[in-house]
Amino acid sequence: MTASRPAFMHLSPADTVGIALRALSAGEEALGVTLGADVPLGHKFAVTAMPAGAAVVKYGQVMGVATADIAPGDHVHSHNCAMSDSHSDRSDARGTLHAAPARQTFEGYLRPDGRVGTRNYIGIMASVNCSSTVCNAIADAANRTLLPRFPGIDGFAPIVHDQGCGMASAGEGFDALVRVLKGYRDHPNFGGVLIVGLGCEVNQLTLYKRTDWTEERIGIFNIQDVGGSASAVRRALDLLEPICAAANEDRRSEQPVSKLVLGMQCGGSDGFSGITANPALGVASDMLVAAGGTSILSETPEIYGAEHLLIARADAETGRKIEGMIDWWRDYAAKNGASLDNNPSPGNKRGGLTTILEKSLGAVAKGGLSPLAGAFAYAEPIRIPGFVYMDSPGYDPVAATGQVASGANLIAFTTGRGSCFGAKPAPSIKLASNSDLARRMPEDMDIDCGVVIEEGVSLEEMGQRIYDLLLDTASGKKSKSEEFGYGDNEFVPWKIGATL
Amino acid sequence: MTASRPAFMHLSPADTVGIALRALSAGEEALGVTLGADVPLGHKFAVTAMPAGAAVVKYGQVMGVATADIAPGDHVHSHNCAMSDSHSDRSDARGTLHAAPARQTFEGYLRPDGRVGTRNYIGIMASVNCSSTVCNAIADAANRTLLPRFPGIDGFAPIVHDQGCGMASAGEGFDALVRVLKGYRDHPNFGGVLIVGLGCEVNQLTLYKRTDWTEERIGIFNIQDVGGSASAVRRALDLLEPICAAANEDRRSEQPVSKLVLGMQCGGSDGFSGITANPALGVASDMLVAAGGTSILSETPEIYGAEHLLIARADAETGRKIEGMIDWWRDYAAKNGASLDNNPSPGNKRGGLTTILEKSLGAVAKGGLSPLAGAFAYAEPIRIPGFVYMDSPGYDPVAATGQVASGANLIAFTTGRGSCFGAKPAPSIKLASNSDLARRMPEDMDIDCGVVIEEGVSLEEMGQRIYDLLLDTASGKKSKSEEFGYGDNEFVPWKIGATL
Ligand SMILES: [Ca+2]
Ligand SMILES: [Ca+2]
Ligand SMILES: [Ca+2]
Ligand SMILES: [Ca+2]
Ligand SMILES: [Ca+2]
Repeated sequence: MTASRPAFMHLSPADTVGIALRALSAGEEALGVTLGADVPLGHKFAVTAMPAGAAVVKYGQVMGVATADIAPGDHVHSHNCAMSDSHSDRSDARGTLHAAPARQTFEGYLRPDGRVGTRNYIGIMASVNCSSTVCNAIADAANRTLLPRFPGIDGFAPIVHDQGCGMASAGEGFDALVRVLKGYRDHPNFGGVLIVGLGCEVNQLTLYKRTDWTEERIGIFNIQDVGGSASAVRRALDLLEPICAAANEDRRSEQPVSKLVLGMQCGGSDGFSGITANPALGVASDMLVAAGGTSILSETPEIYGAEHLLIARADAETGRKIEGMIDWWRDYAAKNGASLDNNPSPGNKRGGLTTILEKSLGAVAKGGLSPLAGAFAYAEPIRIPGFVYMDSPGYDPVAATGQVASGANLIAFTTGRGSCFGAKPAPSIKLASNSDLARRMPEDMDIDCGVVIEEGVSLEEMGQRIYDLLLDTASGKKSKSEEFGYGDNEFVPWKIGATL
Repeated sequence: MTASRPAFMHLSPADTVGIALRALSAGEEALGVTLGADVPLGHKFAVTAMPAGAAVVKYGQVMGVATADIAPGDHVHSHNCAMSDSHSDRSDARGTLHAAPARQTFEGYLRPDGRVGTRNYIGIMASVNCSSTVCNAIADAANRTLLPRFPGIDGFAPIVHDQGCGMASAGEGFDALVRVLKGYRDHPNFGGVLIVGLGCEVNQLTLYKRTDWTEERIGIFNIQDVGGSASAVRRALDLLEPICAAANEDRRSEQPVSKLVLGMQCGGSDGFSGITANPALGVASDMLVAAGGTSILSETPEIYGAEHLLIARADAETGRKIEGMIDWWRDYAAKNGASLDNNPSPGNKRGGLTTILEKSLGAVAKGGLSPLAGAFAYAEPIRIPGFVYMDSPGYDPVAATGQVASGANLIAFTTGRGSCFGAKPAPSIKLASNSDLARRMPEDMDIDCGVVIEEGVSLEEMGQRIYDLLLDTASGKKSKSEEFGYGDNEFVPWKIGATL
């Protein structure tokens, strides 16, 4: 299954270019062609002839056009390749479905609404920063005193944050916060939820009463109504008794993979992310989609420049939604004096990235090649199967919080530098883009995608390994970040508006 | 010292109006005048004649002008009082210094830079959200294993947050975060600091090395450089040994009150805040200033409409700075689709508030009557004595975080609804605006300012009680929020720019 370290790779069968995995010299043979020039590590070389004006294809996607005639074996970079103004209408750009994977089930918690949990936490949710310390104190006390009595529960997860007051009580900032909190309240990884407010905040508890849950599954109160902070902890422990008794009876059962909702993230990327962890995760995402599951791509500033390729894989309505997101982001960035410039930096160019499209494709590669089934606002409920897009910033905790609120019950996070992250109540696995990282931070990395380069493991095989780990994790195997205890500080709802 | 519940009050000797503390009827005597009309609870009545065009004075400040001739005993409200276009140039508007208080010292920790700590914490600071869980784990482990061995230390305080990456690496948003973190790193309430980064974040640790501290007082490292999360906790505990050994020797000594820097906050205000807790805190602030200390007013959106009265108390340069802040806020609010409208709401009007100025004066009353000695940006170091202004949002955790970063070693927080708050490493006392709140939430309220109304305690006497509690708290008396354990979740640096 593994081989010695390869010198080059072909990311996708449709690609017109190969990638050098070490500095290659003119005259060497690679992917069946003879190199006509030296090709530095990470750079591209032509595997087919591309006359001037022809598409340059990488990741199975058009990343630019030839600006001069390119012969097989030529070094392909800024001197003979550039962005094209006209967008691709290649038919294979519409998306292709992966073959159905062999494993079609996992072990999960079937909830009354038909969704399935991969964990059975009790959420201790704050409506406002002012009740966050009390929520943490409740979770600490419950983990100490209640958890030993209710072994069917995975733990008490504080869902605390910095918002909820000092903000406009209407508008997109407030709406985003409400969507996030409702998404967590309703999350299938919670067997029960306690929501604690202060009382005088803008974000009132009256918004959050969950009416389809029996009283054995939800509790809700304000600190100011029960006599203060210490009284609130006592009240909470009382309210948690029946919630825990009910949740403690929940059991895993065999569930179809179609109940999995995967949120995909990348952070701390390096030159390997786009050729190992991201495309390998793309294969796993394609397998999940082929099995009827849902896979969510996000991080709009990081896909900026490649949006037309997502739009080409979508129906007209989804395409218009993505265009609307891109317009919103241009406006948001301009208004805040920021820039969405995703152009390759001089360092990127030295590393072999030629166009903004090629750079963004490295991030989009997480989404594989499946058709795009829908586009959603940040933290909007996602209740359809297939590969979908959810708008978000690129900042990892904010992006993942939105995906979990949308319904993700599993997070897959690729990293080249070694990101540390957890997303309670959803388990989050970390995919190292290079083996050096996997060896250096074994406490945090769940799987080493660097073997694609170090051992010549194919992206297809690497995708299968990730798919298996995703199903094992969904079925209860603890991720590295769960073992350490990540997830109590990474709930970060997107703060869109002004702090007042 | 105390009396039965009074029916009316005079907030300041210069005031031309009194306040009804219950519904008063025409014909009743109040403050030496006979009421000419019914005066509802919380409303104003004239104690001197005010011909049309004359100033209406409350809190010793001009809050509007008479729009009709007003006789002593008349009800003063929207029918005969309004904002004036011309600003006051009354000479007493320039600020008056309080008589020096009797108590001129407290017990604090003198630091090498000449500032004085009111606590002796060890800060465990995160450069980025990604290192926050590790910082919490370090603080938990250190509080469990190191604190029992080093009783001279007050505890290990995690200073963790949601920022540090996914943001522009320059500009006002980044600058504000750096000021906040440097202000905490340098805070006199820390006997030592450990700063932990992830490694690949925008907010690099290289910004934070403190060169004037010996190695026994500061530690700094990245998680990615030490092999991961669990290794980072072990490394931290090693680095903390010499830091703790040094800080454990720190002792309190008698220090002049001029070393106190008080940050003033209000949150969850009610109809009593402006006539009890806020003006009583104003007296305490004036006493502190008279003793050579520093007192910081903030929360620009809440003083909006009363800024010219602060400007009248300041020199020309400080005045220009405050004008600049108001302009900045108008622009910031507009750009974000928010509004700085501080006009009295219909409910405010029913409660007796007539003008925007009167409403803002209720917040400004915390600042007493002292001259304004300076104006500072959010989290800018404040190293001068006197009553000063620091720009901030009104949102309590964000405002207080800025004040502590500026150097506040004590926080006084007035509340009518019952805010719950802590500001580690600075102790924070809660001042209840009404006795009902003080009785309902005794676990959280440090002092009851409602006795101004319930028992007729004078504002001067109430101010003295607050001053005494401030000095006792500075000397080591634990605040209610410290007893509960507040302060690990209320460090919220102002997020100004876009999340990317
Ligand atoms: Ca948080
Ligand atoms: Ca990211
Ligand atoms: Ca904690
Ligand atoms: Ca926080
Ligand atoms: Ca406030």
